[in-house]
Amino acid sequence: MTMNEKEVLDALKKYREMDLKYEDGRILGSMCTKPHPISKKISEMFFETNLGDPGLFKGTKKLEDEVIQMMGNFLNNNNPFGYIISGGTEANITAMRTIKNISRKKGNKTTTVIIPETAHFSFEKAREMMDLQYIKPPLTDYYTMDVKYIKDYIEDNKNNKIDAIVGIAGCTELGTIDNIKAISKLAEENDIYLHVDAAFGGFVIPFLEDKYKLNNYNYEFDFSLNAVSSITIDPHKMGLAPIPAGGILFRDISFKKYLDVEAPYLTDIHQATLIGTRTGIGVASTWGVMKLLGEEGYKNIVSECMDKTYYLIKKAKEYGFKPVIDPVLNIVALEDENPSETCLKLREIGWYVSICKCVGALRIIVMPHIEKEHIDEFIGALASVRKS
Amino acid sequence: MTMNEKEVLDALKKYREMDLKYEDGRILGSMCTKPHPISKKISEMFFETNLGDPGLFKGTKKLEDEVIQMMGNFLNNNNPFGYIISGGTEANITAMRTIKNISRKKGNKTTTVIIPETAHFSFEKAREMMDLQYIKPPLTDYYTMDVKYIKDYIEDNKNNKIDAIVGIAGCTELGTIDNIKAISKLAEENDIYLHVDAAFGGFVIPFLEDKYKLNNYNYEFDFSLNAVSSITIDPHKMGLAPIPAGGILFRDISFKKYLDVEAPYLTDIHQATLIGTRTGIGVASTWGVMKLLGEEGYKNIVSECMDKTYYLIKKAKEYGFKPVIDPVLNIVALEDENPSETCLKLREIGWYVSICKCVGALRIIVMPHIEKEHIDEFIGALASVRKS
Repeated sequence: MTMNEKEVLDALKKYREMDLKYEDGRILGSMCTKPHPISKKISEMFFETNLGDPGLFKGTKKLEDEVIQMMGNFLNNNNPFGYIISGGTEANITAMRTIKNISRKKGNKTTTVIIPETAHFSFEKAREMMDLQYIKPPLTDYYTMDVKYIKDYIEDNKNNKIDAIVGIAGCTELGTIDNIKAISKLAEENDIYLHVDAAFGGFVIPFLEDKYKLNNYNYEFDFSLNAVSSITIDPHKMGLAPIPAGGILFRDISFKKYLDVEAPYLTDIHQATLIGTRTGIGVASTWGVMKLLGEEGYKNIVSECMDKTYYLIKKAKEYGFKPVIDPVLNIVALEDENPSETCLKLREIGWYVSICKCVGALRIIVMPHIEKEHIDEFIGALASVRKS
Repeated sequence: MTMNEKEVLDALKKYREMDLKYEDGRILGSMCTKPHPISKKISEMFFETNLGDPGLFKGTKKLEDEVIQMMGNFLNNNNPFGYIISGGTEANITAMRTIKNISRKKGNKTTTVIIPETAHFSFEKAREMMDLQYIKPPLTDYYTMDVKYIKDYIEDNKNNKIDAIVGIAGCTELGTIDNIKAISKLAEENDIYLHVDAAFGGFVIPFLEDKYKLNNYNYEFDFSLNAVSSITIDPHKMGLAPIPAGGILFRDISFKKYLDVEAPYLTDIHQATLIGTRTGIGVASTWGVMKLLGEEGYKNIVSECMDKTYYLIKKAKEYGFKPVIDPVLNIVALEDENPSETCLKLREIGWYVSICKCVGALRIIVMPHIEKEHIDEFIGALASVRKS
């Protein structure tokens, strides 16, 4: 049975009402947020574009080249190569594809990657598909990879070549930043590829005021470090672009050859992205939001989020809730004896936090849509759940 | 330097003007088209949704379940399992992931897949990442996989287990349909997984009037054939949904376990899709366009495209241009001595066709945005290019 246009839109509206809305402040466990308002107008303008066939959409392709350059600029790379893709998962898989293909070209039979315990589960998808071998160093007291362990591991395994190291700049669970500066030095000395997953931190760390920086972390993570060959950085997280807008940047175009697949039917004869057909909405929106906000705009957004993060911690402490670590970025982990249960109880009363796997804790991401009133209400709700 | 909102939108408009527009009729080599007008309104409504975290967007998730059921219905499956994802590439990679994981569970060291020469290049991405072994049977005179060869190959390789066969229903280059009925019989007898790539044909073949069906092809391709375990079918091609709206459907939910990855931070504890964060725009638009058009609406669209396809062939023949085969679907291949050169010359004067790799030919897809006037003009342009 068909419906007319009004019936379709009315029906869809009802489904949409069952969704949570960012502005209600109940989404406390997501790394996505309400996109910047300008992106709705931009999306309408670029609604029909397809960067899977860039020769047809030359203007949109030009925007992608420019936006990669703009992101390269604030990542200290004047000559980057990359794409705006579906998200961090595709970006991380793309980096792993590159690493595997470099390793294979060298004649290695297995691809070995040193990667933190705290890595996002997209790396597990990559491992399973590509049969990668992961080495997971222990974590320090600050929940970062133990660099001394990596050093020793490399020395002890001279015959068992390490193909790559993955470092995280803004880890999903705790927001921690691996000591990528020290790792880069090791990687450079031993000719090892270094990929940085800054899916979340990429639009935070470059705009973070010094006053928020902790002593126990090194905040350097970008192409200014010699061994960094690729970075995952998602505009649709803290960049305020709409989904889909993930980002993968390489140091330069020399990495493209490891990704190219022959694409006989398209306007380009090779395709390097994992996904084929892809909308230009993410590209144009990222371009637009970046031009509109500029460095100052992102700095303000990051400072506001950090301010609210400290507010959340202060409130939590008032109720006797203990954060696992001081906040590195706008992510808070609160110790909890049974985080899964607490999480479910909170959901029952309409609050959506998530949990940390690496420590028993509730995980809250203080995205731009979270206001101080929401934090007050949430802490009250958490107190009531803990008492029950 | 930042810009204000008006400056951003004005600047973006200029980039957008460099793109081709579907309505100008110059895009003759794309399997995408102008989405149905209602999808713009729907996209606005679902702009902020993220099905990567379905517990937050329960209404949108419900729409996805319903739309998979609706697509299952016209693919003769009342109990399908699947997702609306980024496109045919992700769908085909997802099917290959399933096949590899089933094979691995059986203890096989390599995964062997029989796949046509004419398969889309997304299968090459899957092969490269997952180290699959592809067997490519010769093509018949009708550009379909030689079923006799497959039968003999299976018999001759009893010790070398075949894990899967891929059949194509609407091949990218020529629109041909493999004899999936006969292949399904073979697959069933030998306990082999059968995946069907109907990325293009899935929204054409079920709505194709009998008068357009040729004698040398079998048009059956869906779950009514016993061995078919998964189907790639893209709403953002002939389904008139906007990008990103690809589709992967499995026979039932028993296949989910081969795809699940632990997702500790999300509202669901497992994630089966390859991509994580994903907009609900494709889901809601597919739901809306399907409800609005219904079977009758899609039948009309397909009939109009087939009518224009025959018109193109008639016009082409008047100029002495020879089609490689009679049209199976709304795709035309015109013989050409040097298709790459002709293609480039056509681009220079603003016409964008593509080429066939398997035969020396130009490839034209008669999508809904192509009108008869465009065909007249194009044939004239092709004649002028051939004379030059």
